[in-house]
Amino acid sequence: MGLIEPRTLKGFRDYLPETMMPRERLIETARGVYRSYGFLPIDTPALEYAEILTGKGGEESDKQLYRFTDHGGRDVALRFDLTVPLARFVAQHSNDLGLPFKRYHIATVWRGENTQKGRYREFMQADFDTIGSENVAVDVECALVIHDLFRALGFDDFTIRVNDRRLLTGLLASLDLADKQVAILRAIDKLDKQGPDKVAEELVAGSGLSPAAAREVVELTAATDPRGAAARRPSELPAALAARIRATPAGATGFDSLETLFRGFEAATRAPQRARLDLSIARGLDYYTGTIFETFLGALPGIGSVCSGGRYDNLAQLYTKERLPGIGASMGLDRLLAAMEELGLVEKRRAPAPVFVPFFDAARLDDYLALCAELRRSGFGVEFYPEPKKLGAQIKYASRRGFRVALVAGEEEWKNGTCQLKELASETSRVVRQADLPRELAALLG
Amino acid sequence: MGLIEPRTLKGFRDYLPETMMPRERLIETARGVYRSYGFLPIDTPALEYAEILTGKGGEESDKQLYRFTDHGGRDVALRFDLTVPLARFVAQHSNDLGLPFKRYHIATVWRGENTQKGRYREFMQADFDTIGSENVAVDVECALVIHDLFRALGFDDFTIRVNDRRLLTGLLASLDLADKQVAILRAIDKLDKQGPDKVAEELVAGSGLSPAAAREVVELTAATDPRGAAARRPSELPAALAARIRATPAGATGFDSLETLFRGFEAATRAPQRARLDLSIARGLDYYTGTIFETFLGALPGIGSVCSGGRYDNLAQLYTKERLPGIGASMGLDRLLAAMEELGLVEKRRAPAPVFVPFFDAARLDDYLALCAELRRSGFGVEFYPEPKKLGAQIKYASRRGFRVALVAGEEEWKNGTCQLKELASETSRVVRQADLPRELAALLG
Repeated sequence: MGLIEPRTLKGFRDYLPETMMPRERLIETARGVYRSYGFLPIDTPALEYAEILTGKGGEESDKQLYRFTDHGGRDVALRFDLTVPLARFVAQHSNDLGLPFKRYHIATVWRGENTQKGRYREFMQADFDTIGSENVAVDVECALVIHDLFRALGFDDFTIRVNDRRLLTGLLASLDLADKQVAILRAIDKLDKQGPDKVAEELVAGSGLSPAAAREVVELTAATDPRGAAARRPSELPAALAARIRATPAGATGFDSLETLFRGFEAATRAPQRARLDLSIARGLDYYTGTIFETFLGALPGIGSVCSGGRYDNLAQLYTKERLPGIGASMGLDRLLAAMEELGLVEKRRAPAPVFVPFFDAARLDDYLALCAELRRSGFGVEFYPEPKKLGAQIKYASRRGFRVALVAGEEEWKNGTCQLKELASETSRVVRQADLPRELAALLG
Repeated sequence: MGLIEPRTLKGFRDYLPETMMPRERLIETARGVYRSYGFLPIDTPALEYAEILTGKGGEESDKQLYRFTDHGGRDVALRFDLTVPLARFVAQHSNDLGLPFKRYHIATVWRGENTQKGRYREFMQADFDTIGSENVAVDVECALVIHDLFRALGFDDFTIRVNDRRLLTGLLASLDLADKQVAILRAIDKLDKQGPDKVAEELVAGSGLSPAAAREVVELTAATDPRGAAARRPSELPAALAARIRATPAGATGFDSLETLFRGFEAATRAPQRARLDLSIARGLDYYTGTIFETFLGALPGIGSVCSGGRYDNLAQLYTKERLPGIGASMGLDRLLAAMEELGLVEKRRAPAPVFVPFFDAARLDDYLALCAELRRSGFGVEFYPEPKKLGAQIKYASRRGFRVALVAGEEEWKNGTCQLKELASETSRVVRQADLPRELAALLG
């Protein structure tokens, strides 16, 4: 019989231990931060009825669905994000959940998109959302969670860019351009690449704006362009622009809400430089209705936003008549991990247990097992080598795997109730009484 | 537009916070125990080429596969266990892994089987395996990991039943019945339900054994029947039976290996009562080649084995010519969780953050945010209520969610730099200086 070639599907990857260890750390860190704000974990099935998932993320997203007919003839698909399942979840369980409902969900999603560097068809996301409150306190908290998350991940230099859809809505209404919003958003999205002049031209030629209106629209976003001496929060905007935005009730509400957000962010973090207004953020405006967040890492400018989200008025309107406003954000955990790996920001230590015990004296298996068990009961991770090979080969294995300490016991040591404690990095060694090991290891490993 | 009914697929379930919290605890516990023995985490894709997965778990398993054609016309399927992906994984990455390779894998699998109580089509397993060693030290370790796992999960009364395929092979060879092994295994599997007489009859009538041989086969397993005064390890078996088993080299090796395992288990755990020989365990003998494990919980006798595994000679033979012996076991994490839930063994506290801060004085948002941030920096999980509702309603929310402490600050308290510390269970309240909160909370929450 021929061999089957061992391979993974295009766009899918195995996680080897040296990548899986930091991946588990990322997951644990995200979970710890979310919990510290009172978010509760949930999980939903990977497979859903296709009708739950289709038509929610646009045509592109429907095309990327892993969709098929199951054994029972049901039309099913793998989830492509964690927001649509959340909407279905809160509609289905609203009686049991109570409001406000704060959940986090760290799980895998699948998208059959074209693969590129650092992009996979299977990846993990770490989402958090608060459902059931429209108070700006929740918007501030959303920014604070993102802040604490990246601090906990070890990042110092990052910026949360914040916008509010209502600022642009207000401005367009006061310029009598409300009906051209979609075209204008599309043009604004190109500001980064094409520059203000080109975009203003397009607004005139393509959308029929007056040159003055086009200039005002472009100025709105240029006012917060981080490359200039720009406004970092609404109160720093040029007075004329601020007046234009505040001319409608929606614009004024959005303006005040954002200002409250920046004030609260500063009070809680004492690091106001990590949040700034960016009026050019226009992501998914069809979906979001208020505050919008994107997060950029100073060390990884090329990879775009690593944590994005915003406020929506009515999460579950396709499934229930109950109105459920909410706000949340999603960290692309695997995407961030891949980028951190590439930049060497991921520590490559492999051994999860710091203590290595070689199998040296073949006649003493029970003694080795009892010693290892005793150390584990004292709280130390201990790996016991499974074969009584030459000591040199076992120590080499331990060094390569990143163990910190080896405890070597042969006939002589067993008789005396001692062992040799070898620090593998410094290659120093000393004799220690076995009874003293918990204390010695605690001092050494902290 | 009509509403879409929010529902999950048959055999699939949502995890609400009160179930997801203990599920996360189970996962963390399993991970901690596996790591404490030096097992390393890996992950593999949920989707594999169908040819990797088919024909590995028998016809039944092929029928239960979620299998379909993807966008690129590939024949793909969702993994139905974590062992077949491990075999593919070690064959594919053998150059990078090094031996021995100890991995754990905690992940979801899918089986389109008929649903019954406590059985789902999507469930999480927690596997660990050591690849690349045939030394009995690994067999002992496997039993020790299972032991430590259930101890860490809070179980006191459980039994790891251990067998070795070679004991039966040895006996059958010495009875000249090696060619009838499959039929005999099938008969032995019915011992529990049909009793020894009926099974002996079947062995004579169905498999053509002599009445004496049939009796001896049945005695083999009856010798360790936990319902009688039975042998708990090989050395306690009746002498004649032991001699029969040891009459072939394979039988003698298996006998000695098991005896070493029980001795090592006792040395390490000091709890020999938690492991016992059970010669009636015949699970998947086509697959396993040596030691076999099943684990039964005293409190949950009805649900069968909650952690099973064994030794195999050649894990990845379908994918590589390299011979890779190994041993491991799999805990059915979601199945165990469902059983524990049903028995009320799962603590239902919901709040992951112990401290609740009501939003009492609407003008003081920044102050509340700063106070909460300060407490989080001191290591306490704090949930801040997002709406300045009536205090009574907020405290009711906190009590219902299982918070332990509420910190109430109104105009008066803000002026004095104090707050009221309310213990929600005892409904007692006292005034505390805000600066003293870290110390007070540490004393209260431990």
